[in-house]
Amino acid sequence: MNYRIIISILGRVLIIETGLLLAPLAVALLYGESPMPFLWTIGLCLAAGGILSAVSQKRRGSLRPREGFVSVTLSWIFISLFGALPFVFSGAIPNYISALFEIISGFTTTGASVLAEVESVPKGVLFWRSFSHFIGGMGVLVFMMAILPTDDEHSMHLLRAEVPGPVKGKLVPKMRDTARVLYLIYMAMTLVEVVLLLFGGLSLFDALTTAFGTAGTGGFSVRNASIGAYNSAYVDIVVSVFMVAFGVNFNLYYIVLVRRSWKGFKSQELGCYLLVVAAATVTIALNIIHQYENILQALRYSFFQVSSIVTTTGFATADFDKWPSYSRALLVLLMLMGACAGSTGGGTKAARLVILTKTIWGEIRHLVNPRRVAHVTLDGERLDSDAVRNTMVYYMLYALFALGAFLLLSVENYDLETTLTSVISCLSNIGPGLSLVGPTGNFAIWSGPSKLILSLCMLVGRLEIFPVLTLFAAGLRPGRKGKKRA
Amino acid sequence: MNYRIIISILGRVLIIETGLLLAPLAVALLYGESPMPFLWTIGLCLAAGGILSAVSQKRRGSLRPREGFVSVTLSWIFISLFGALPFVFSGAIPNYISALFEIISGFTTTGASVLAEVESVPKGVLFWRSFSHFIGGMGVLVFMMAILPTDDEHSMHLLRAEVPGPVKGKLVPKMRDTARVLYLIYMAMTLVEVVLLLFGGLSLFDALTTAFGTAGTGGFSVRNASIGAYNSAYVDIVVSVFMVAFGVNFNLYYIVLVRRSWKGFKSQELGCYLLVVAAATVTIALNIIHQYENILQALRYSFFQVSSIVTTTGFATADFDKWPSYSRALLVLLMLMGACAGSTGGGTKAARLVILTKTIWGEIRHLVNPRRVAHVTLDGERLDSDAVRNTMVYYMLYALFALGAFLLLSVENYDLETTLTSVISCLSNIGPGLSLVGPTGNFAIWSGPSKLILSLCMLVGRLEIFPVLTLFAAGLRPGRKGKKRA
Repeated sequence: MNYRIIISILGRVLIIETGLLLAPLAVALLYGESPMPFLWTIGLCLAAGGILSAVSQKRRGSLRPREGFVSVTLSWIFISLFGALPFVFSGAIPNYISALFEIISGFTTTGASVLAEVESVPKGVLFWRSFSHFIGGMGVLVFMMAILPTDDEHSMHLLRAEVPGPVKGKLVPKMRDTARVLYLIYMAMTLVEVVLLLFGGLSLFDALTTAFGTAGTGGFSVRNASIGAYNSAYVDIVVSVFMVAFGVNFNLYYIVLVRRSWKGFKSQELGCYLLVVAAATVTIALNIIHQYENILQALRYSFFQVSSIVTTTGFATADFDKWPSYSRALLVLLMLMGACAGSTGGGTKAARLVILTKTIWGEIRHLVNPRRVAHVTLDGERLDSDAVRNTMVYYMLYALFALGAFLLLSVENYDLETTLTSVISCLSNIGPGLSLVGPTGNFAIWSGPSKLILSLCMLVGRLEIFPVLTLFAAGLRPGRKGKKRA
Repeated sequence: MNYRIIISILGRVLIIETGLLLAPLAVALLYGESPMPFLWTIGLCLAAGGILSAVSQKRRGSLRPREGFVSVTLSWIFISLFGALPFVFSGAIPNYISALFEIISGFTTTGASVLAEVESVPKGVLFWRSFSHFIGGMGVLVFMMAILPTDDEHSMHLLRAEVPGPVKGKLVPKMRDTARVLYLIYMAMTLVEVVLLLFGGLSLFDALTTAFGTAGTGGFSVRNASIGAYNSAYVDIVVSVFMVAFGVNFNLYYIVLVRRSWKGFKSQELGCYLLVVAAATVTIALNIIHQYENILQALRYSFFQVSSIVTTTGFATADFDKWPSYSRALLVLLMLMGACAGSTGGGTKAARLVILTKTIWGEIRHLVNPRRVAHVTLDGERLDSDAVRNTMVYYMLYALFALGAFLLLSVENYDLETTLTSVISCLSNIGPGLSLVGPTGNFAIWSGPSKLILSLCMLVGRLEIFPVLTLFAAGLRPGRKGKKRA
């Protein structure tokens, strides 16, 4: 293991975080709030980043897959450890574990909160909380690649670990240019949403933070009643449409914009994703219609909630915990699926569902007719058996993680619905769950140890399990004895 | 598709069922009850079996995998369609859909009941209800093979479809002898349990029906309070130990008894299974100790319930729905795992969990060091990639079926815990779930369509998904166009 290169990356990431902290500092000053929480954090973060950079000296050697995984995971842990400090220093969340939960929820774009009341929190802190969604959405290492010189071989392993989804080959050439273009698209879309929200009558502060929450598919809002507080059909629809748009694979935008080819939109994953959104919106609207004035109202609330949950954003305009069982059950299933690979959304990704469906179909054909060898294709290209097996293993790991965390959290003796949806919500980076952690509840009910378990779930969910696991997996050094056994 | 051979098998199965119906007929006569429900059923069953046998004439051609799957699935459906009749004719369950649910629950050894009160049901019907567990436990086609002459090539495809578990190669040679030995072991163990229960003061009727429920890991009891009605620590322990024993892979008994080798017990699956039972028993006992007098009492109830759930039997001695969340959550996880492959138990099987764990471990090693090719071994033997992929696909199908049924049932608007555990309980062939379908509740709450969905879940669970799917899978004829696509 090349520790020096890992330390070097961690140092750079912390220095970048220092830069990012200037934004909430400016907001705090603008609103006449104390800049001290941010100044302290900036000082500590800069010092730590500087020390790590100095210790690592000049990077040497190459970055292998394992180092890529470990670097990405540790980077996310480090930015969270420092990112939690403004909550503590400002007194908004005095308990460090709770603050850590909140900022991990921010960076992983989960949006699960320990705060019952957010409107009294200082604006600077609220801005930092929402800004963390924007940073985490596209990925902090992708950002680093976009702005700092890094050679392509290194970048590949980092990108592989940080960008979600089962198939990553397409991004490989010209890594740094790609990272830049992706960030430009990301920022342009966010800007358009901000402008549209300003038209809807939101203040610049509300428009910016809401757009950050949408762009990262995070879900932190600066209002206690989430987007429902604006009570505007226009705002609901703008946010709904942008949530869906940020849940689309950014490669598709890249292909359409850079290569000027509409072929990007002929994606099987996109088809699956949009079909699910449409089907869920319509059936939920029919299921909840008796609770609303007419079908248009029902569709408005249904579309918003479906978009919010399937993209794993987690904004709310209605207390969907009060909806009938079918709607609630379907929302839980949407939580499991999540958005498209290569988007800012979480969950297990629509692409994996497509691969899964095709693999199952191939397996049935193979069982019925053993001479037939089943190949799985995605958008006409054949997937190698490694990619297919990796998808299956990913699902199994997701399920094992969910069930394990469910068992550990059940010790606290809340009802099983609260416990299970807390875990799924964190693992899929949604935000709200059902019952006690529904849209009107919050995660403050959980004890410190449970909050740490849920924080781990959020990290594991955001980084798609494997990178985090390599941190824990002992005995994985290449060249160790026992090579032949699996 | 060779329809003639399928019809021939169905005819034989119905004639065997006619023979099996003589047992409850005798019981009815013994207790002075009306024999008419059984005489009518026997008449109809014999007529149908005779017609099918006559139509098929002499079997010709060979049985291919697809025909094996279809035969087994249709056999299970046919014996259920006729097996439900005594409930209707006797008036115990007047509604045919409910009666069908009850007998499918019996044959699949689920033990989920629509009856709130069983003690007033005629003895003959109760005997048939419990006897169906015994028939379904080892499998009705395995029974047919054991008593009727069948050639080995046919038997293989039938056995493959009916005997649960991921690895079936070991059973192949001398199929008919194996089927006989397995049934002999099964009957001997049941007999020992009957004798031990008679020592515990149970009547012969109670001892027989309880032993049937244990042997098939079914869970129907002739008492409203299940095994708790006997209120005897001795009975609890006998039943617990036998439940665990019937959850062990019968191949192991075969190896130990026939090949006289203790190597059979050195199975990684057995180790996993016993470890899970022990760990669950101890931690649940600690979790429920405050509800009982002392640790021994807590252990007694915990061991019974863990054995009952992990083997997917479903007997109860306590209302575990009133236990704390940790115990209830763990019981749900045990429902998902189930017993050993090749046992009479349901669930996804401990063997698959072992294969899964090793596959995941191999995948992580492969990701960290891509040059390492991971092979999965079970008990020292290398599994081919087909078996591993099949295991993964099985899990995914299990999950998709569970989630799909969960969504469909949620339309009835019961709480999500009731809905989800109803599905898991039926799919894993357990019996009780939690909340409204807990040990004191029953499945009568569900409407007709939902009962049919749950019946399908039970069949899908018992036959391990693939055979049932081939019935529905259109366009699977070998030699059809589009061979190259998956």
